[in-house]
Amino acid sequence: IAKEVAKLLEMKAQLGTDEGKHKFVLKTPKGTRDFGPREMAIRERAFKAIIACFRRHGAEVIDTPVFELKETLMGKYGEDSKLIYDLKDQGGELLSLRYDLTVPFARYLAMNKITNIKRYHIAKVYRRDNPAMTRGRYREFYQCDFDIAGQFDPMIPDAECLKIVHEILSDLQLGDFVIKVNDRRILDGMFAVCGVPDSRFRTICSSVDKLDKMPWEEVRSEMVGEKGLSPEAADRIGEYVQLHGGLELIEQLLQDPKLSQNKVAKEGLGDMKLLFEYLSLFGITGKISFDLSLARGLDYYTGVIFEAVLLQQDNEHVEEPLSVGSVAGGGRYDGLVGMFDPKGRKVPCVGVSIGIERIFSILEQRLEASEEKVRTTETQVLVASAQKKLLEERLKLISELWDAGIKAEMLYKKNPKLLNQLQYCEETGIPLVAIVGEQELKDGVVKLRIVASREEVNVRRESLVEEIRIRTSQC
Amino acid sequence: IAKEVAKLLEMKAQLGTDEGKHKFVLKTPKGTRDFGPREMAIRERAFKAIIACFRRHGAEVIDTPVFELKETLMGKYGEDSKLIYDLKDQGGELLSLRYDLTVPFARYLAMNKITNIKRYHIAKVYRRDNPAMTRGRYREFYQCDFDIAGQFDPMIPDAECLKIVHEILSDLQLGDFVIKVNDRRILDGMFAVCGVPDSRFRTICSSVDKLDKMPWEEVRSEMVGEKGLSPEAADRIGEYVQLHGGLELIEQLLQDPKLSQNKVAKEGLGDMKLLFEYLSLFGITGKISFDLSLARGLDYYTGVIFEAVLLQQDNEHVEEPLSVGSVAGGGRYDGLVGMFDPKGRKVPCVGVSIGIERIFSILEQRLEASEEKVRTTETQVLVASAQKKLLEERLKLISELWDAGIKAEMLYKKNPKLLNQLQYCEETGIPLVAIVGEQELKDGVVKLRIVASREEVNVRRESLVEEIRIRTSQC
Repeated sequence: IAKEVAKLLEMKAQLGTDEGKHKFVLKTPKGTRDFGPREMAIRERAFKAIIACFRRHGAEVIDTPVFELKETLMGKYGEDSKLIYDLKDQGGELLSLRYDLTVPFARYLAMNKITNIKRYHIAKVYRRDNPAMTRGRYREFYQCDFDIAGQFDPMIPDAECLKIVHEILSDLQLGDFVIKVNDRRILDGMFAVCGVPDSRFRTICSSVDKLDKMPWEEVRSEMVGEKGLSPEAADRIGEYVQLHGGLELIEQLLQDPKLSQNKVAKEGLGDMKLLFEYLSLFGITGKISFDLSLARGLDYYTGVIFEAVLLQQDNEHVEEPLSVGSVAGGGRYDGLVGMFDPKGRKVPCVGVSIGIERIFSILEQRLEASEEKVRTTETQVLVASAQKKLLEERLKLISELWDAGIKAEMLYKKNPKLLNQLQYCEETGIPLVAIVGEQELKDGVVKLRIVASREEVNVRRESLVEEIRIRTSQC
Repeated sequence: IAKEVAKLLEMKAQLGTDEGKHKFVLKTPKGTRDFGPREMAIRERAFKAIIACFRRHGAEVIDTPVFELKETLMGKYGEDSKLIYDLKDQGGELLSLRYDLTVPFARYLAMNKITNIKRYHIAKVYRRDNPAMTRGRYREFYQCDFDIAGQFDPMIPDAECLKIVHEILSDLQLGDFVIKVNDRRILDGMFAVCGVPDSRFRTICSSVDKLDKMPWEEVRSEMVGEKGLSPEAADRIGEYVQLHGGLELIEQLLQDPKLSQNKVAKEGLGDMKLLFEYLSLFGITGKISFDLSLARGLDYYTGVIFEAVLLQQDNEHVEEPLSVGSVAGGGRYDGLVGMFDPKGRKVPCVGVSIGIERIFSILEQRLEASEEKVRTTETQVLVASAQKKLLEERLKLISELWDAGIKAEMLYKKNPKLLNQLQYCEETGIPLVAIVGEQELKDGVVKLRIVASREEVNVRRESLVEEIRIRTSQC
C-alpha cells in the first residue's frame, strides 16, 4: 500500500508541474556556484600564491580529464564511494566525475609507467555531499594538489610537503594555524596494543577521524555500540587519542611499554622523530602538532598523515566568526599506484591538497569587511573623445594602443558624453584617459588625463605608448 | 526475436568478462587525454597569449559550474543536442555537462540580471562526438571565450571580436589564416529570395554549414533529396554561396536586384559594410573574407557570424601537413539571454570562441619538429653537496632559499653523488648549482656552479640569494 501511495503522490506531483505554466528554474545545480568577476579576482590572487609556492619547490604541472572510467575510482575511497557522481549510461563506457586528484594521479603514473615525478595539479573535483556553502563546503570545488612520487630516503619529501603547507598558509595571511601530524602506522600499532582486531582497524580509524566534529563520548559509543568494540579497548584508545605535542611526546611514546613493543608503531614513531628533525631545520616546528587523534578519512594512506587547521581568532571586523576547520591535508600513500599497475609495481607517493574553497570564504569575508576596492580588469587607459563624430579616430587610436600591447578600452557608442567616459573610469578604476579632439588631431597630440589627480597633459602621439607605460608601471 | 537475441548476446558478453580473470583497463575515457608536463608547458604558453589579449581588451573573467540543470541546456543547440553528456539520476536534480560556454554565460546574465559586461571564460566543455584526436577533435576540450553583452551602437563590439581573433592568431604565429564573415540576416534574406519557405530556413542553413566539409553537389542533393527543397531554389542558393570577397562584394550585393529588395538582407548588408569600415580602421581587412557560404551550426546566432581558418602551407618540417580547419568562431546572439529571463528581456551579445585543442595540435607538432627543449619547471638552483653527511646542511640552505623566494630543488637522498646531482641539472635545465661542502661551511661561503659554462665561484652565504637572482634574471 505504501508503495502504491508513493506512486500516486509522485503522479500527482508530476501533474502539478504539468498543469500550470512550466516554471523555468533559473539556478546553478545544488552545491555549485558561479564565480563573478569580483570572486574571480580573489580566487586568482589565491591561486597565484599557491602556484608560486609549488613552482618554487620545482613542481611540474599536469592535467587529467574531469571524468574517469567508473572502475578506476571504485574501491579507493572506502565509505565515501557513495558520494561519487556517475554519468548516465548513454552507450559506451561507464564514467564517473573525479572525486579527488590523487586517484587520477596514481592512474596517470601507472598508465605512463612514471616512477619519479614532482607535480602539481589544480582542478575541480566533485562530491555528492551535503553542501554547507556558507562554510565553504560545495559539491563542485577546487583542489590544489602537490605530490612527490618516487623511491627516496625517508621523510625528506614528507617534510617538504609540510613546509609547503606552512609557506602557503603564511603567504595567504589567513591568521594563526596549526598543522596536525600523525602516522597511519602509529594508529595501527595503537589499535593493535589497545586490543582492536586487525580486521577492524579501518573502521575504527574512521570513527577516530570524527573526533574533530564530535566529542570523545559520542565517538566511543559509536565504537562500542555500532562497531562492536569492547569498552576496555575503546577506553585504552581514548587515553592515547587525547595526546598531542612535539618531539617530547614522540620520545615518551618510544618509551611507552606497550607501543614500543609494536613493530609498525615503532617504525612510525622513528620516522616521526626524523620528520621533526627535518621540520626543525626548516624552522617550522612551532606550528606543528603531533596529534594522535588525527586519522584522515581516506583508505589509501599508508604512512605520515597531516591536516592544517585555522585557529579561531577574536576578529573585530567580523561579527560572527567563521568556522572553517581544515584548509589542507594529505599524507603518504605508497600502495595506490600499485593498485593500477598490471604487475602491482609500487610507486611510493606523498602529497598535500589545499582546500581552496574554505580559504576563498575567508578571503571574501575579509575583503567585504575591509571595503577594499578590487579591480576586476587591468585596463590602463580609456580612449575617449570630447566632441562628436570622432568614433573613427577613437578606433584608429585604440587599435594602435592594442598593437603596442597597451590594455585599452573605449565605450561602444558613436558619440559618448565625456562625463560618461570619465565616470566609467572612476567606476572601473582605469587610471588614464586618452582624449582625442579636433584640435589635438591637428596638433598631432593626444590629451592624457590622470583620473586620480584630474591633471591633463598633451602628449605627442608618437610618445603616447611610452608615456602610458611609464605612468602605469607602478600599478 | 531480435530483442531476445540482443538480451542473450548481452548475457553472454557479461559471462565472458566474469569468466576469465578480470582485466583492468588502464586508460582515460574515450575522446579524452592527460596533459603531461611537456604538453602543459605548451598549453600554458598558448593560454598566456590568449589571456593577455583578452585582458588587453579590458575583459573581466568569470567561471561557472561544469554541469548545469539539464533544462538549462535543452532547446539551445538544435540538432547537436544529442551530443550532450547527461549525469546519472542519483536522486535530486537532473544535470548535464556543459556543451559550450555561451549558454552558461547567458544563464549567468539572466540569473544575475546583468545587462552589460565584457568577460572571458576559459574552461572545458563536453561533447559526445566522434573523436578524431589526431586532428585535435576531443570529447573533452577547452574553449576560450570572449563576449561583449549590452545594448551598444551597431558593429563596434562585433569589430572588436574580429580584432581579437586577428591578434591571437597573429601572436601565436600559427601561419597564414583567413577570417570568414557572414550574417544570419543575409543568409535568411538569401534563402527568402531563392524561394526557401520560412519554416525551412534553419534546416537549409544547416546544410549550407556543411559546405566546408562537402562539395556543393552533395549539399545540393541533401537540400533537394532529404529536405525537399525545389531544385530551382537550390540552384539559386548555389550561385550565391560561391561568392566571397570584400567591400566590393558587399556593394555589389547591395545593388543585387533581388537581395536589395529583401528587408533583413539589406539590414545585414548595411551592417556588413559598417563592419568592414571599422575593420579597415583596425588595419585587418587583408585577412577578412565576406563569405556567403559561411553558415555556422548553432541555432542561437542572430546577426554577424564568423569563423577563422588556418591556411594550408607548404611546411618543410612536417611530412604530412595537418588538416586543422576552423580554429575560432563566433557571432552575435541577441535572443539567447531572453530565453532565460522570466520576462523575456533581451540582452544583445556578441562573442568569439577560440578552439584551443586544434591550436595545441599544431604547436605540439611544430615543437616536435623543431626539437626545441621545453623546460617544464622553473627551478633556478639545485642545492647539492660534494661530500656525505651534509643532508642537514642542504635542508637548512634550501629552506633559506625558499623563504627568500628562490625556486630551489634538492635530491631526496641522504648522500647523493655529485655527478648525479649535476646530471639532474642537465636533464631538467636547472641553470645553477649551490654546492655545500665542509670547507665552504667553515669559510661561510657556498660554491655556485653555472651549469652551462661549468664555471664555479665562491659566494658569501649572505649574498647568495642576490647572486642567484642576478644570474637568473635573464631567464
